[in-house]
Amino acid sequence: MTKLIALYKKPENVEEFENKYFNEHIPLVNKMPGLKKAEITRLKGVGGEGKFYLQATMYFDNEDALNEAMASPEGKASAKNLMSFAKDYVTMYIGEDN
Amino acid sequence: MTKLIALYKKPENVEEFENKYFNEHIPLVNKMPGLKKAEITRLKGVGGEGKFYLQATMYFDNEDALNEAMASPEGKASAKNLMSFAKDYVTMYIGEDN
Repeated sequence: MTKLIALYKKPENVEEFENKYFNEHIPLVNKMPGLKKAEITRLKGVGGEGKFYLQATMYFDNEDALNEAMASPEGKASAKNLMSFAKDYVTMYIGEDN
Repeated sequence: MTKLIALYKKPENVEEFENKYFNEHIPLVNKMPGLKKAEITRLKGVGGEGKFYLQATMYFDNEDALNEAMASPEGKASAKNLMSFAKDYVTMYIGEDN
């Protein structure tokens, strides 16, 4: 299982950000071919507020499937949408379970 | 489902760190009462190396179960062990799936 992990810093305007995130972005994410599951997790720091406030984990069968998904028209539309409102807040990782 | 998420920066000595992490720390984590599952994920940054290189996700039924686990003798032993070699590298979050 390969994960695409997105960590989000808290934006200045949470309501506006989450409106775009949940109503525009997540529907685009869910159209990506090969996506097995997407989990959105609200974060709170242990011993402090923490740099990140939201994590998205998208599951694929393997890294090839993830790469194909990101290169697909649906993947490109999803990435383009994300960059339109979240580029200052998001950090992305590819994760492989040990 | 409530997650305890640990993000690790790459340590100076990866081999020494991982020896302690996998051989000392993870066995202590696995003794925590109420732990449903622990996943260790190797990370690589998208578009750059990324600040973090390893993520651990520990699953509990809910936040009460997580708090009880952390307050238990096993939880305290696990945290104490982690702080003995990883305090400069780890950031922890409590995550609640949206």
